[in-house]
Amino acid sequence: MQFTIQATDSGSRARTGLITTDHGLIETPIFMPVGTAGTVKAVHQRELTEDIKAEIILGNTYHLYLRPGLDVLSKAGGLHRFNGWDGPILTDSGGYQVYSLSGTRKIKEDGVTFKSHIDGSPHMFTPEGVIDIQRTIGADIIMAFDECTPYPCEYGYARESMAMTHRWLQRCIDRFDSTEGHYGYRQTLFPIVQGSTYKDLRQQSAEVIAGHNREGNAIGGLAVGEPAEEMYATIELVNNILPADKPRYLMGVGTPENILEGIALGVDMFDCVMPTRNARHGILFTTQGVINIKNEKWKDDFSPIDAELGGYASSFYTKAYLRHLIKSEEILASQIASLHNLTFYLWLVKQARHHILDGTFVSWKNQIVKKVMQRL
Amino acid sequence: MQFTIQATDSGSRARTGLITTDHGLIETPIFMPVGTAGTVKAVHQRELTEDIKAEIILGNTYHLYLRPGLDVLSKAGGLHRFNGWDGPILTDSGGYQVYSLSGTRKIKEDGVTFKSHIDGSPHMFTPEGVIDIQRTIGADIIMAFDECTPYPCEYGYARESMAMTHRWLQRCIDRFDSTEGHYGYRQTLFPIVQGSTYKDLRQQSAEVIAGHNREGNAIGGLAVGEPAEEMYATIELVNNILPADKPRYLMGVGTPENILEGIALGVDMFDCVMPTRNARHGILFTTQGVINIKNEKWKDDFSPIDAELGGYASSFYTKAYLRHLIKSEEILASQIASLHNLTFYLWLVKQARHHILDGTFVSWKNQIVKKVMQRL
Repeated sequence: MQFTIQATDSGSRARTGLITTDHGLIETPIFMPVGTAGTVKAVHQRELTEDIKAEIILGNTYHLYLRPGLDVLSKAGGLHRFNGWDGPILTDSGGYQVYSLSGTRKIKEDGVTFKSHIDGSPHMFTPEGVIDIQRTIGADIIMAFDECTPYPCEYGYARESMAMTHRWLQRCIDRFDSTEGHYGYRQTLFPIVQGSTYKDLRQQSAEVIAGHNREGNAIGGLAVGEPAEEMYATIELVNNILPADKPRYLMGVGTPENILEGIALGVDMFDCVMPTRNARHGILFTTQGVINIKNEKWKDDFSPIDAELGGYASSFYTKAYLRHLIKSEEILASQIASLHNLTFYLWLVKQARHHILDGTFVSWKNQIVKKVMQRL
Repeated sequence: MQFTIQATDSGSRARTGLITTDHGLIETPIFMPVGTAGTVKAVHQRELTEDIKAEIILGNTYHLYLRPGLDVLSKAGGLHRFNGWDGPILTDSGGYQVYSLSGTRKIKEDGVTFKSHIDGSPHMFTPEGVIDIQRTIGADIIMAFDECTPYPCEYGYARESMAMTHRWLQRCIDRFDSTEGHYGYRQTLFPIVQGSTYKDLRQQSAEVIAGHNREGNAIGGLAVGEPAEEMYATIELVNNILPADKPRYLMGVGTPENILEGIALGVDMFDCVMPTRNARHGILFTTQGVINIKNEKWKDDFSPIDAELGGYASSFYTKAYLRHLIKSEEILASQIASLHNLTFYLWLVKQARHHILDGTFVSWKNQIVKKVMQRL
């Protein structure tokens, strides 16, 4: 994987770049749609490329490991071949999902034991095992196995957890560097900065992660309930330490505002379930603001969902029709809303990119954040 | 509405024709995807035209009347404007849905009282009211209000029900002929033959319906549980009486075999929830036979769903991937399977049309029925 910085903004830490993978190019800053179980929910693969213009999607190790399972993925020749998405894929380590199985999982130095949410069967994830799984899934970018601490988190727990995440990282690196991809293309491993919201821990973690000198680095454990200002302060602190010439990935973030502020702080890659999950609940992100399409006020609004954004879902379907579909619990509601929200998210980062290149990023950001975050 | 017969088959009653509506042409024989609540479930409007190549879709009066309701549909300028499907639309009368609310509905001479499945609110459908509703929905082809008898049905009940359906038909015609469409294009009214599986009743009903000399005629009350042979015998009897120069619509039918046998008996139009409903349960109709994609045998079958059929869903996605999606209860499973099944159904009637024009219909039908109805 290669990363080239193309332009840096004079008024912020924002930059544009180009990531080269064996499955294609990624222009940064970029938003990555989440494809949990090998599918970006309610979205056809051709819609990802042709309408949403996604450049990289996510897969979830936990879900893919349980279903369809490694045997099928291996026989298919990896996730790209299995689901037909031929562009770059990033997989998370499965840690985040496993921790959220709070009743059934146990975290120990060796790894994490948990029970499948599908059939209750017992499993164990170790740093080495998770690398092996991601080798089999065949993601272009694979993530280290970390513990994502909750918020708030006691200092002692956050410190111990971070230290274990660092030890696990070394085990991940050892495994990764002593193995090869299964399918003939290159994979790369991103380590993850943890440390909750404690400045000294975040600094320490960022230094450890930077010291490994991998091809890209991630910031985890944010957007878990902490105030936005605390998140931004943490990103700023961490990004001052993470190498500037490597892509920085802010995991699981966030709202349009979070993303634009993240870009301003030097983040290059984002993922979040928000555009697709909120879509399924009728929350739309538009160029004019946030819409709860279930509200009565849209009942006979026959204007397009978002004429300014354009694209199929946003300009062909009306607000009134989408409201009807979601009130009627029709599948097409999820399809339209997901297509629209993802198109908006990709548009947003592409706009940010243009404005960084133009040298107008900060003023544009400050205006657009107010506009797109207002409730309509 | 105009109907022109283009070719008739020498070996059967099959024919090809062209229906002209103000929303476009329909080449018959045709299958009409069911769009219950103003949406063909899990299918985008552009997929209907570009992939499935649908020429006419159905709407359900009962569902549309309750949600979004006539106020919204009227303000939108009718269902075409509301849902963005610009081709011909046929609406059923709502009768079938109302009767299936068996616990809460009462059938009387004046009409049917029932309670909404959504909020329990009381409503009444009368022949006149149902015409008014379909005028407001704005379907190109609107159906008379009938009673669809169950199977088996006692002779006495079937006879009385049929007689009431005929009286209701006169009321529908009186209302239809004394009103106009709301949106500037023409609508037409199809009456419906009933009479259960009793030959004398079916003959009597077909004569009454034929005597009204409307622009098209429908056969109702079939595919409700009777043996296929009884259904075919009834169609044959009725089609000998219904005028040959008007399109014949066999309501709610059916399997690929039912449709091909119906075409052989002179039916021109079909609708059925089977391709979409079965899709959502993982049952696929393919050029090679019927597939239950949930079966273990497809787990690592990485061949396309139906390479011979072609088209996006059928050639891009594999059986193993679709199986994974449906086992994981992913929305995309319904999207892919619905798109595939409807593409197959439209392909099937288009193939039938070609073979009628070629003079090879019967031999083709006898071969293809065996092939597409076998369980794989």
